[in-house]
Amino acid sequence: MSRIVYLNGEWLPEAEAKVSVFDRGYLFSDAIYEVTCVLDGKLLDYDGHSARLKRSTGAIGIKMPVDDETLLSLHRQIAEKNEMTEGLIYLQVSRGNPGDRDFMFTDDMTPTFFMFTQKKNVIETKTGKNGITVASVEDLRWGRCDIKTTQLLYPSLAKMEAHEKGADDAWLVRDGLVTEQSSATAYIVTKDDVVITRPLSHEILPGITRASALVIAEKNGIKVEERAFSVDEVKAAKEAFYTSASNFVTPVTAIDGHPIGDGKPGALSLKLRDLYIEDRRANAI
Amino acid sequence: MSRIVYLNGEWLPEAEAKVSVFDRGYLFSDAIYEVTCVLDGKLLDYDGHSARLKRSTGAIGIKMPVDDETLLSLHRQIAEKNEMTEGLIYLQVSRGNPGDRDFMFTDDMTPTFFMFTQKKNVIETKTGKNGITVASVEDLRWGRCDIKTTQLLYPSLAKMEAHEKGADDAWLVRDGLVTEQSSATAYIVTKDDVVITRPLSHEILPGITRASALVIAEKNGIKVEERAFSVDEVKAAKEAFYTSASNFVTPVTAIDGHPIGDGKPGALSLKLRDLYIEDRRANAI
Repeated sequence: MSRIVYLNGEWLPEAEAKVSVFDRGYLFSDAIYEVTCVLDGKLLDYDGHSARLKRSTGAIGIKMPVDDETLLSLHRQIAEKNEMTEGLIYLQVSRGNPGDRDFMFTDDMTPTFFMFTQKKNVIETKTGKNGITVASVEDLRWGRCDIKTTQLLYPSLAKMEAHEKGADDAWLVRDGLVTEQSSATAYIVTKDDVVITRPLSHEILPGITRASALVIAEKNGIKVEERAFSVDEVKAAKEAFYTSASNFVTPVTAIDGHPIGDGKPGALSLKLRDLYIEDRRANAI
Repeated sequence: MSRIVYLNGEWLPEAEAKVSVFDRGYLFSDAIYEVTCVLDGKLLDYDGHSARLKRSTGAIGIKMPVDDETLLSLHRQIAEKNEMTEGLIYLQVSRGNPGDRDFMFTDDMTPTFFMFTQKKNVIETKTGKNGITVASVEDLRWGRCDIKTTQLLYPSLAKMEAHEKGADDAWLVRDGLVTEQSSATAYIVTKDDVVITRPLSHEILPGITRASALVIAEKNGIKVEERAFSVDEVKAAKEAFYTSASNFVTPVTAIDGHPIGDGKPGALSLKLRDLYIEDRRANAI
C-alpha cells in the first residue's frame, strides 16, 4: 500500500508528495523535524515532542504552520489514514520556498510542512532484546546540536563508518568524551548501578525519551547522575544503553570491539526498557 | 519569464521543478552544490568548480550523475535556454530518494541532480565599488567545511545576525581567528601590502575564486601569505576584502563598526578586483 503523506494541507499518495527545488529546506538545510512513536494506535510522549518542535522552530525563527490542536489532530489522522498501530510519525517544517536562493530570509515566509509514517515493530525487536554494538567516532557536528535540524549528514556518515568498523551504530566523541549516539542518547551504568548520561547543553539533543526515562528511573529507585563520560569509562562500565523515540531503552553490549560488562544486555538496561514501555504505554494519548 | 530548470534529465518550468519529500537532500542534508559565474555568456573558472564538485561528491560517496562532457554541456545549455549572459548557475547533487527514511545508505542509489540560473549583474555592482561591512560571529559550523554541502543553516543564521548588528555580512571566528565569510573567503592587507588569508584546512572551503585570485596576485607582484588572523588584526589592517564566485574580489571597509584603514575600499583590493576580472574574463569558456 502506498502511504498517504500530509503536505501543506493536502493528503497525497507518497509518490506525489513533492516540494520545490527552491525550498530552503533543500538548499540551506533550513528545516526542523520530529519523530513520534505510535503504539497501540496511540502517540507516545507526544507532549514532549510537540514542545521540542516549537522550541526548535523558535530557535531558528521558523513560524509554526499549524496550531497545537491541529498538530495533534494531524498526528492522529495520519496514523489512522495509514492504518498504523505501531511505528513512527515523521514531520518536517522548513522555512519554505522564497522563489529564489538567498542566504538572507524574511519573517513573512510560508513554511513547508509535511508528515509521513513508517510502520515498524517497536516492542518486539531484536535490538531491544539482544542490544547493539557501537564504535566510537569523532563528533564533527555543528555547535547547536540541541536544535533538531535536518543537518544530519554527519550522523549519517558516522553511522556508515561504524558499520564499516563492524558495529551497529556510532557513539560520537568530542574532546575525549561521549556526546551521544548518531541519533539517540547514550548512557552507561556503573558497578554501583548508577545510570550516567551527559547533561543537556548545546552539544546534544534534549532527548524526549531521555527526559521520560530519567524520571521513570528515579521513580523506580534507580540512581541517575548527569555528567559526561569517556570511552574508557564505557569499556569499564557494568552496562550501557541508549534511548530514542523509536527504540525506547536499548542495551549496548560492546564499544570498539570491547565487550561492556559480560558483553550481554545488562539487567538494569532491560528493566528500564520494560519500565519505560509500561509507563509510556499507560500514558499514551 | 519563468526560468527553465534542469532536473534529472528534464528541462522544466521552475514551478514544476519538484523533488520527493523522501529525497535525502531534504531529510538528511545529504547533498553537494556548486555555483559558477557566467560573464559575457561564458563560464568563469569552470574547471575549478567542476573539479571541486567531484571532490565534494567523492568525499561523501555520492556518484556523479553525469560525465564531464555532459556537465559542461548542461552549463552551456542552461545559460542559453535562460538567455543569461551575466549571472550564476547553481547546481545540486543529492544522494537521491531511497523511498524511505534511513540514516544508512547504499552505493547503488540514483542521485537527484538539478541546476537553475540566477540573473545578476556581477561587474557593475555597488559592493564591488563601495565594499561591504562585516560583523564577527562565532563559527559554529561542522568540522568539514571543506566539503561544499547544503548544510548552510548556520551561514544563513550568521548572515542574519550580522544584518541585525547593522553589517552586510558575517566573518566567522573560531578560537579567536577568522575562518571565512558566511559564504566567501576572507582576506586582510597589511601595512606592507601583503595579502593574508587562512591556509586551506577542514575549517574552510577551498575557494575556487581564492585559488585564482592568489595566482593572479602573485603573477602581478602582490605578496601573499597564508596564515590565520584575528579580529584585532582585521581592525589594524590597511585593507580587507573577500572573494567568491559571484562577487569576485570585493572590498570590506569595516568590522564590528570599526573602520578598516581609512574606512574606504582599499587600493590594492580594487586593483586585484580589476586584475581578477580581466584575467578570468579572458580565460572564460
